[in-house]
Amino acid sequence: MRAVDIIRLKRDGGELSPAAIDSFVRGATNGDGWAPYQLSALLMAVFLKGMSPSETAHLTRAMADSGKVLDLSDIPGPKVDKHSTGGVGDKTSLILGPLAAACGVIVPMMSGRGLGHSGGTLDKLEAIPGFRVGLNESEFRSALRNVGLGMIGQTSDVAPADKTLYAMRDVTGTVECIPLITASILSKKIAEGINGLVMDVKCGHGAFMKTRADAKVLAESLVRVGTANGLKTIAVLTAMDVPLGRYVGNTLEVIESIETLRGQGPPDLTELSVLLAARMVKLAGLAADDSTAIQKVRKALDSGAGYEVFLRCVEEQGGDPLALEDYTRLPTAPRTMYVVAPRTGFVSEMTAGAIGVSSMILGGGRERAEDGIDHAVGIVCRAKPGERVLAGQTIYEVYYRSTAKLMSALPLLEESFTLADEPPPAQPLLLEEIA
Amino acid sequence: MRAVDIIRLKRDGGELSPAAIDSFVRGATNGDGWAPYQLSALLMAVFLKGMSPSETAHLTRAMADSGKVLDLSDIPGPKVDKHSTGGVGDKTSLILGPLAAACGVIVPMMSGRGLGHSGGTLDKLEAIPGFRVGLNESEFRSALRNVGLGMIGQTSDVAPADKTLYAMRDVTGTVECIPLITASILSKKIAEGINGLVMDVKCGHGAFMKTRADAKVLAESLVRVGTANGLKTIAVLTAMDVPLGRYVGNTLEVIESIETLRGQGPPDLTELSVLLAARMVKLAGLAADDSTAIQKVRKALDSGAGYEVFLRCVEEQGGDPLALEDYTRLPTAPRTMYVVAPRTGFVSEMTAGAIGVSSMILGGGRERAEDGIDHAVGIVCRAKPGERVLAGQTIYEVYYRSTAKLMSALPLLEESFTLADEPPPAQPLLLEEIA
Repeated sequence: MRAVDIIRLKRDGGELSPAAIDSFVRGATNGDGWAPYQLSALLMAVFLKGMSPSETAHLTRAMADSGKVLDLSDIPGPKVDKHSTGGVGDKTSLILGPLAAACGVIVPMMSGRGLGHSGGTLDKLEAIPGFRVGLNESEFRSALRNVGLGMIGQTSDVAPADKTLYAMRDVTGTVECIPLITASILSKKIAEGINGLVMDVKCGHGAFMKTRADAKVLAESLVRVGTANGLKTIAVLTAMDVPLGRYVGNTLEVIESIETLRGQGPPDLTELSVLLAARMVKLAGLAADDSTAIQKVRKALDSGAGYEVFLRCVEEQGGDPLALEDYTRLPTAPRTMYVVAPRTGFVSEMTAGAIGVSSMILGGGRERAEDGIDHAVGIVCRAKPGERVLAGQTIYEVYYRSTAKLMSALPLLEESFTLADEPPPAQPLLLEEIA
Repeated sequence: MRAVDIIRLKRDGGELSPAAIDSFVRGATNGDGWAPYQLSALLMAVFLKGMSPSETAHLTRAMADSGKVLDLSDIPGPKVDKHSTGGVGDKTSLILGPLAAACGVIVPMMSGRGLGHSGGTLDKLEAIPGFRVGLNESEFRSALRNVGLGMIGQTSDVAPADKTLYAMRDVTGTVECIPLITASILSKKIAEGINGLVMDVKCGHGAFMKTRADAKVLAESLVRVGTANGLKTIAVLTAMDVPLGRYVGNTLEVIESIETLRGQGPPDLTELSVLLAARMVKLAGLAADDSTAIQKVRKALDSGAGYEVFLRCVEEQGGDPLALEDYTRLPTAPRTMYVVAPRTGFVSEMTAGAIGVSSMILGGGRERAEDGIDHAVGIVCRAKPGERVLAGQTIYEVYYRSTAKLMSALPLLEESFTLADEPPPAQPLLLEEIA
């Protein structure tokens, strides 16, 4: 079957056979009869004509198999990971990874870098001096054996077909497509060699999925396709209208993660990290039900066992352990500016997206994948929705290096919150769970 | 406006602005911010979401303007061309060009080569020893001044955007798309510097458009978009279920064209050539109505004036004029095979497509654009639908060089006709006219 025939079939709304999907994925891996402009033509046809669950499941498997799939069966214990679709201030990975590992889960976490207004776990970890996210396979295996947790970047041999297609989708208007998103996320997770996956599907202004309905469709697709590929998958839908926690920016988020692991974190971040870690513990078969799992994770948090795992993880991966006690050893921005409340009132809204973009503008994130990053800059939300502020009281502390960048970010920040005379109704963080 | 934003707009069914279309065409001409995989993504989005008449008109103009547009205003007289969407045995260009020129029309004909089962005017002309289809611009202008007719290939500087997009559409499943077909055909015709265009839109088994409804949609688009770009355009819909005339193959079609210009041609080919030439004469303003135009063309045919123009055209373009009198000077196939009637009866059907493919297989056409061609081979239909044959009487004479190729073509030919006890109802050749 030639590439053009496969494209025509999908263009006309047909179902692609496993062999046709394999051909496409080989094309995305090493050419093999497909020109790049044929790959993108098929992507657009898939965008506009869709894919059935079984097509999506096969595409996911073929993309995982396009590169190295880790076999971790020689490492004892259940392997479970968590993946988030990306939000602002979302540093749960740094917290729940250690918590789940402290409960006996093996957590082989391969993460990505930040892009646009969303931060990335790798960028946050690299704020810790010396921390190496580029472990080779044998170092990664050692980390999993020694610590129960390894946090690394995807190596170039993981799902190479996804790398090609992901970069191409970004510039061909084929990003917002449930089957392609599903295959992109899950192919990389399957390649980690895990048994279970907890998906945190964010929805709201600060998330990729703006509406709950869209987020639910994606969550259902992820659970269905993961399960079809033998990966125990559950998904939680969580709100992402407001930053998670109070700290946005790489160094700042490391600090808030450490504080949370020490029991000093903000309630929303603590609650979500514990919940997601508990789902990992349950998926791993280490707790019979949700409440037992929550209790186990709570205990790991309260006892400091989670913090201990994080400390050992940092040491194992070459990071400076003293930085966890002395934050001045982390990259620090030279200047601070304050955005204050123009009048007394309750913070009624705070748009996560604008804060994420502001952090990116300051240098804390990437507009393009090839951009560099400044770990030191960021924003601390001193007030959040529902809290009362007096006129002149600080809403945001802005940690910055370049005045020009600050000047670009300030108007966004000043418009990113609203004040009202009454507190807004409380918004739940956990919206729904799909198993 | 970035390429990705233009793709997204069309993907979502939006209308592209002239500036957006210009950007796309620049991308197809010299890159300019567009990667090839972005061009093909937009092609697929256009295929599935369509283009309005005004988008199509602007695309056509932009593609014409992507390269050299001839200015023939210094050559006196009205410039009119004919273009066919391609059929089997369709050698009308070789006949109507001389006939129209004999009536005073300037005919600056830029043609293409054959692909698939359709022949190409350039390939036919090159069967005449020495005939040069690659005149430079000054030679082409001389031909138009001296003969009133020039028959050349599109030079590389004509509509370069179309060359890129045409090649890409072929391998990305985006061929059968009215706006893209319209822009491809008309951009090259506008670049010829003509004032009027007669379109012969073929429909039937042997044509690109299989149904009359599809052919009509294309014809209407061509007339509308040509007119919107200041080109007087009319279209005739003609049947292409059966080969036009009796000869298929390059040398063979040259011979039948010469015979027709001498008044010895088959009725269907003669009738259509005269009709199309008459429409050119009318579009050129050289006849007030259709019947006057037909009379003028008939006179040019009957007087031998058309043949004289063809002879002078051949001489002007370096061809061997003696070959028009002595067909042994044309490339001749070394071997002949006969396909005969298995029983007595009336030929009731004859599928043009199968005969065109057979000619291609023999070497007379190209499966891929880069393939070479054998001018000598081809097929003569000794019987056509409506004619009675006796058992053992010849249906086809097959002129071939390679026995292996003959063996591939014969089964197709043997299945390409059916015999019946009664003659089939006569089928009109001219189906409809759109002005």
